[in-house]
Amino acid sequence: MKQGGTTRDRMLASAVTLFRERGVDSTSFADVITHSQAPRGSIYHHFPGGKAQLAEEATRMAGELMSATIAANLEQREPGETLLTIVDGFRRQLLDSDFGASCPVAAAALAGGDFDAARTVAGGAFTSWETVIAAGLERRGLTPDRAASLATTAVATIEGAIMVAKAQRDVQALDRVGAELVRWVHAALAEVA
Amino acid sequence: MKQGGTTRDRMLASAVTLFRERGVDSTSFADVITHSQAPRGSIYHHFPGGKAQLAEEATRMAGELMSATIAANLEQREPGETLLTIVDGFRRQLLDSDFGASCPVAAAALAGGDFDAARTVAGGAFTSWETVIAAGLERRGLTPDRAASLATTAVATIEGAIMVAKAQRDVQALDRVGAELVRWVHAALAEVA
Repeated sequence: MKQGGTTRDRMLASAVTLFRERGVDSTSFADVITHSQAPRGSIYHHFPGGKAQLAEEATRMAGELMSATIAANLEQREPGETLLTIVDGFRRQLLDSDFGASCPVAAAALAGGDFDAARTVAGGAFTSWETVIAAGLERRGLTPDRAASLATTAVATIEGAIMVAKAQRDVQALDRVGAELVRWVHAALAEVA
Repeated sequence: MKQGGTTRDRMLASAVTLFRERGVDSTSFADVITHSQAPRGSIYHHFPGGKAQLAEEATRMAGELMSATIAANLEQREPGETLLTIVDGFRRQLLDSDFGASCPVAAAALAGGDFDAARTVAGGAFTSWETVIAAGLERRGLTPDRAASLATTAVATIEGAIMVAKAQRDVQALDRVGAELVRWVHAALAEVA
């Protein structure tokens, strides 16, 4: 996540990075202050709703960034290639972080009871990724139902594979689901070609 | 998770239930004591390694239970039906818990830095589910490579869909991936029939 910008932006970017690495529950305000080099006391100035608000906004930022990335990618590539690009991005991130970094939106999705708002935002982020991917599949000729079903499955499969790969400290799960997703998207498109 | 048995068993079962609902990081020893009605002080008696040991053993228990369930199911049903049965189990659990309960092994997979051992056990649990499912697919005629790839994808897809459904408070993701997995397994088996 890019650093720089306002103190508030840096705090959000740091929250995304830390959620990715250790989850929402295990990230403290003090961690975010240290990581973003923000002045102590600035958390409640910028996030009067406390950590729940920080988690909610950081999750929204991460979700929207991914949504825009997927949309831009789908304009230039075949849907199967786009999915493979997303898989490769997470694959690289896991390797570069020694399997520390996973998806910050997933962290919010599984956060504990104090983070209902962040979890709701995570659900909305998944929906928005599904919608963007489904639209790309529809543009290639799939029916809305078929496109929606495949898009949801792609999002679930990639999120699950990130979790499996992180726990196994091995990117094999991502390699396998990447190949399967490409196969399935091609098969679905071949049916309507 | 069944209650009863020794104090130690009840504590493990309570830990699994609580991890499922609120994640590993947000579950305290006090929560486990209260939930299992175990005598205060019994945690360190039964789990001298503290919460890290409790998390590791609870994750192992949940992983092995699921592995045995999948294996038993695969002996009686077609692989696609078995996957649908697993999906339906999590679907019912999410609905019965008002979207509070997800997979306890996933909770360990994404736990913070203090739970390396539990995360490693979660990775091993995913591997064991993959192996059991792959063996079922091989018995139906798939090559080892094809069986392994589909099995990994099934595990990742179901785990991801549980997370998406929980965040969206809607089981639609599970319904969709259930149908897609059945379709893919049938297609793969048809190729070798």
